Amino acid sequence: MSGFLITCMKTNREMSMFSEERLKDLRKILHENPELSFSEHKTASIIKDFVSEVVGKSKLFILHEPFETSVVVEYKGGDPDDPHVIFRADMDALPVKENSLNHYVSGNEGIMHACGHDIHMTVLCGLVAKVAEDTPSKNILFVFQPGEEGAGGAKKMMESGFFDKYNVKSAFALHVTDDLEFGEVGSNGDVLFAIPKEIDVVFKGNSGHAAYPEKGNDALAAASSFLANVEHKIRKVINPTEIFLMHFGKISGGTARNIIADEVKIEGTLRSFDRNIMSLASEEIKNTAENTAKNFGCRSEVTVLGEYLEVRNDPDLFNMLKKVCDDIDIKCIEKKAGLVGEDFCYFTDRYSGLLFWIGTRMPGQEEKQLHSETFFPLDEVVPEGVKILFSLLTLQ
Amino acid sequence: MSGFLITCMKTNREMSMFSEERLKDLRKILHENPELSFSEHKTASIIKDFVSEVVGKSKLFILHEPFETSVVVEYKGGDPDDPHVIFRADMDALPVKENSLNHYVSGNEGIMHACGHDIHMTVLCGLVAKVAEDTPSKNILFVFQPGEEGAGGAKKMMESGFFDKYNVKSAFALHVTDDLEFGEVGSNGDVLFAIPKEIDVVFKGNSGHAAYPEKGNDALAAASSFLANVEHKIRKVINPTEIFLMHFGKISGGTARNIIADEVKIEGTLRSFDRNIMSLASEEIKNTAENTAKNFGCRSEVTVLGEYLEVRNDPDLFNMLKKVCDDIDIKCIEKKAGLVGEDFCYFTDRYSGLLFWIGTRMPGQEEKQLHSETFFPLDEVVPEGVKILFSLLTLQ
Repeated sequence: MSGFLITCMKTNREMSMFSEERLKDLRKILHENPELSFSEHKTASIIKDFVSEVVGKSKLFILHEPFETSVVVEYKGGDPDDPHVIFRADMDALPVKENSLNHYVSGNEGIMHACGHDIHMTVLCGLVAKVAEDTPSKNILFVFQPGEEGAGGAKKMMESGFFDKYNVKSAFALHVTDDLEFGEVGSNGDVLFAIPKEIDVVFKGNSGHAAYPEKGNDALAAASSFLANVEHKIRKVINPTEIFLMHFGKISGGTARNIIADEVKIEGTLRSFDRNIMSLASEEIKNTAENTAKNFGCRSEVTVLGEYLEVRNDPDLFNMLKKVCDDIDIKCIEKKAGLVGEDFCYFTDRYSGLLFWIGTRMPGQEEKQLHSETFFPLDEVVPEGVKILFSLLTLQ
Repeated sequence: MSGFLITCMKTNREMSMFSEERLKDLRKILHENPELSFSEHKTASIIKDFVSEVVGKSKLFILHEPFETSVVVEYKGGDPDDPHVIFRADMDALPVKENSLNHYVSGNEGIMHACGHDIHMTVLCGLVAKVAEDTPSKNILFVFQPGEEGAGGAKKMMESGFFDKYNVKSAFALHVTDDLEFGEVGSNGDVLFAIPKEIDVVFKGNSGHAAYPEKGNDALAAASSFLANVEHKIRKVINPTEIFLMHFGKISGGTARNIIADEVKIEGTLRSFDRNIMSLASEEIKNTAENTAKNFGCRSEVTVLGEYLEVRNDPDLFNMLKKVCDDIDIKCIEKKAGLVGEDFCYFTDRYSGLLFWIGTRMPGQEEKQLHSETFFPLDEVVPEGVKILFSLLTLQ
């Protein structure tokens, strides 16, 4: 939790390096070095190097590393008693094998910045650079947060107590999306992102030779029956006017084709805007797993790994975003809440907060999906993001 | 394919080492060093060491290593023109995590002799030792064969051409089972083991963020629908008087809970006694996979990795087994064909052959399943196996 002063020298040559080109280089190196949740060591190092470079010997900046791979750059441009504004970027990548046709690709096989966190970090670094140049009279925390992808990094940062000593006025974050065109942003003044709940469903049977199914208990048969029925089952306990999503994204089980699988694990996520619906859903999943397991002579184990909160935007901050966008000729679209989850919820739960989408799709370009191997937003969004965040800062 | 003469010295001390105790030690070291198909390097080395030890400088024995990790001990006790008798044991283990309560356990985490091949090899080594002592006037090939567990080792050995230079009269193999009590053997003079066909079913979709199912194509949804329906589908194309088994023992797919799975692989095995039924079944699996994939906007790939033959016993050899068992007070039970697969079929397809079950369940003991983590036949079966095989040899 202790900070240290950045004291490295800032030469004229380095000063001139802060530019869109420098941010493009930064984004490239971040994209080429993706790391999974809480393994963002190189990422943190790249960020610290960049911050040192642009901040130089300024005593207005303090670098903190409060929690695991997190990096917080504190800027003390305001009066000591002024409240702080938080700008937050997430750092982790996903276990996705990048499409080799992307402009440049991950150097870590099987890991990819498929959710645009490389852009988020680059924007935040750009904002640090802009603040270092303009030295506004504000107190700011630039928060680089690890473990957003289902790992609950934001919650852990809150629980670390690091923010307790700050009086935080507001917290901002942005998220890239190809759902909007470049030049558009989207948000609202209410709930923007859903409650995500991570759930593991494990079936345990008894192995044996495939030729004698009657002598074993097939965990894979139970798992496939569960998957085939659970969507239907759950729709019978949730009123159809409620918004609810259940998705199972990963499965593994069994040891060989000719052995009865003794264990199959299914990894899923649930989403809604209502905490009661979430409880109802996980209860029904437990029941369905238990009954299905029993039906196949197996046992089931359902584990809730984590449940976030909904991301709830502050209506005043959304109005500010609309004003800022008007001023700099960006189209601000009022978006309805989506079933994406974001642990920025722990910031909006504690502080007045605003999360907004920033469009990345170029005109005429096909929409690429978040978390897919082809998601590769262009660098142009970076200076736009910096501009919006800096404008929001001036209104705080 | 070339052989070399075993020339190591055989001392009196080593002579006396051949005993049931020595075979127990051998079985223990084989059990503790299980290796997967075609990785049986240490296993081959253990066998060669044992054979060298019991065979010593005898010029009646030639050691061959005709194919990958295979070991063939040739014994030339008969006239050069006399035909050869084959005794075959399989060498490979399974990807099963052994139950730690077994008498002693695998030293290779996650790999286990769960199909009793350690016993089969020990019996065959015991037979080599017995032949080395008694020097019968026979020509014999003791065949230690790699890759039985779905890897088609026997077929590959046949295709290697090694056996082409031998005039083989008959081929024998045994297989342990807890289905029979110790002191019982089981076989028949017709088809004993089924045709196994290995099949991989892969579903390919398009990944994306779990929150937008409508923008991706979920390979896991397709796979679970396939698994839930394929048993029902296949029973509509096979006459119920035909014996047929389909089993899927392993599944893996998807990269994370919050990503739409873009690929799921299911590994299965089909069994019947009729080659036409096998074709019909794999055709229907292809159709079901294709239609299911289409239903979910995915693609399917069905790959047949290998298809063995049925193990067809020679009725005369089965009569010999019955006689031998009568003589040595072992109960010989006529067994109906089972859906177990065995690549010993490539021996029975080419030569008069006999495969028989040898009982391992001790009275009052619970039956343990082949391929399960608790399958651990007792050593007592080894000398019994040696005795039966040696008695069969004398009748050739």
